[in-house]
Amino acid sequence: MSKLYRLHGRAGSRIWKPLWCMRELGIVEQAEISDVPIKIGRTVEIFPGEDDKREYYVNNVNPNGRMPTLEDLEKGLTLFDSAAINIYLCKKHASELAPKDAAEDALCTQWAVWGAFEAEQDIVLLMFAQMMKDEARKKARTTELWDKLERPMNALNISLGKSGEYLLGDRFTVADLNAESVLDWGLRVPGYEDHIKFNYPLAHAWMTKIRARPHHDANQNA
Amino acid sequence: MSKLYRLHGRAGSRIWKPLWCMRELGIVEQAEISDVPIKIGRTVEIFPGEDDKREYYVNNVNPNGRMPTLEDLEKGLTLFDSAAINIYLCKKHASELAPKDAAEDALCTQWAVWGAFEAEQDIVLLMFAQMMKDEARKKARTTELWDKLERPMNALNISLGKSGEYLLGDRFTVADLNAESVLDWGLRVPGYEDHIKFNYPLAHAWMTKIRARPHHDANQNA
Repeated sequence: MSKLYRLHGRAGSRIWKPLWCMRELGIVEQAEISDVPIKIGRTVEIFPGEDDKREYYVNNVNPNGRMPTLEDLEKGLTLFDSAAINIYLCKKHASELAPKDAAEDALCTQWAVWGAFEAEQDIVLLMFAQMMKDEARKKARTTELWDKLERPMNALNISLGKSGEYLLGDRFTVADLNAESVLDWGLRVPGYEDHIKFNYPLAHAWMTKIRARPHHDANQNA
Repeated sequence: MSKLYRLHGRAGSRIWKPLWCMRELGIVEQAEISDVPIKIGRTVEIFPGEDDKREYYVNNVNPNGRMPTLEDLEKGLTLFDSAAINIYLCKKHASELAPKDAAEDALCTQWAVWGAFEAEQDIVLLMFAQMMKDEARKKARTTELWDKLERPMNALNISLGKSGEYLLGDRFTVADLNAESVLDWGLRVPGYEDHIKFNYPLAHAWMTKIRARPHHDANQNA
């Protein structure tokens, strides 16, 4: 049977986000995975040593030169941002995870931008900082990054204090999925969860609840 | 007459984005502006010397501690991201600028994230780099930032090569408004437009057309 979607990416990369979402929706079997080889150096290089393939990918699949990319083969739509992909899929499959009204829809966009703009980069840097060999520098860098993360973590914690169990209220939605997936980058950082638990207890409780979802773990091992 | 919206922010800041959008929609008269005093140092401090007001703002208006914030007074909805605010307003007022189907909707989210995550920060840093007094360092920093901007500018240029006049096709939408407003940060950087024109000609033509919209200029003087 031909597949409905083609998902471009590399296991262990941001592809885990749409894969997690697809598992929640029960549509992961409808996706063909197209592997994107990478080489991690100072930046992430895609299709290392394969200039023609990289050029083709940038010009025809993802002009941003990143992963993941979703192609909806039925609709002829290509999307290059993982949060946008997830919101699109939840809406298309009329999932409980999709926004139900205009206000929820706007909040889903807001939290997609929050994840990408406010939180993700510094959490990824926190993960990379742990590879530093000089302990004093590692500690200083870690402290600096936690300071920068105070704003987005506080925004998350305060918002959960108002919305309740989840970001849009009493049910898990794609706003939670997109926001929580950003926090997952830090899970291998020593003391990460304790720091969040102590300083942003509502965010920690929310994160713990979401990580216990059956489809979350599978995704971590993608 | 009581207003439909309260828009928190400071003239000259990111508040120009929702104000531009509101002018496009013809609803700017429906917004009450609530001034947020700022002090620009190494970071932007809101409500300098007014701890109580800042604390109130963070806990009750914008947990992210930034501007702008939109309150929809009728719906009891508060949004803290400018791109999310604009998409929400265009949809609510059933504007031609709003997405018309699921694919356009997803592309609006994608370009909102592109602006915030891929482009905005480095364009703002490009603007700040011009204040450097040492010419050699200024030049090196400018070159470095243009290198980083190659990815998002390329994504924009390639996408316009496929979509046509605007990001979603042949009409101006909120995807264009959100994306173009990010590029406006750089307009005072010497050589900025020439650099874009030479390297990303489709992006430059698109930007020039959008900047010629009657409501664009008004916003720049907000």
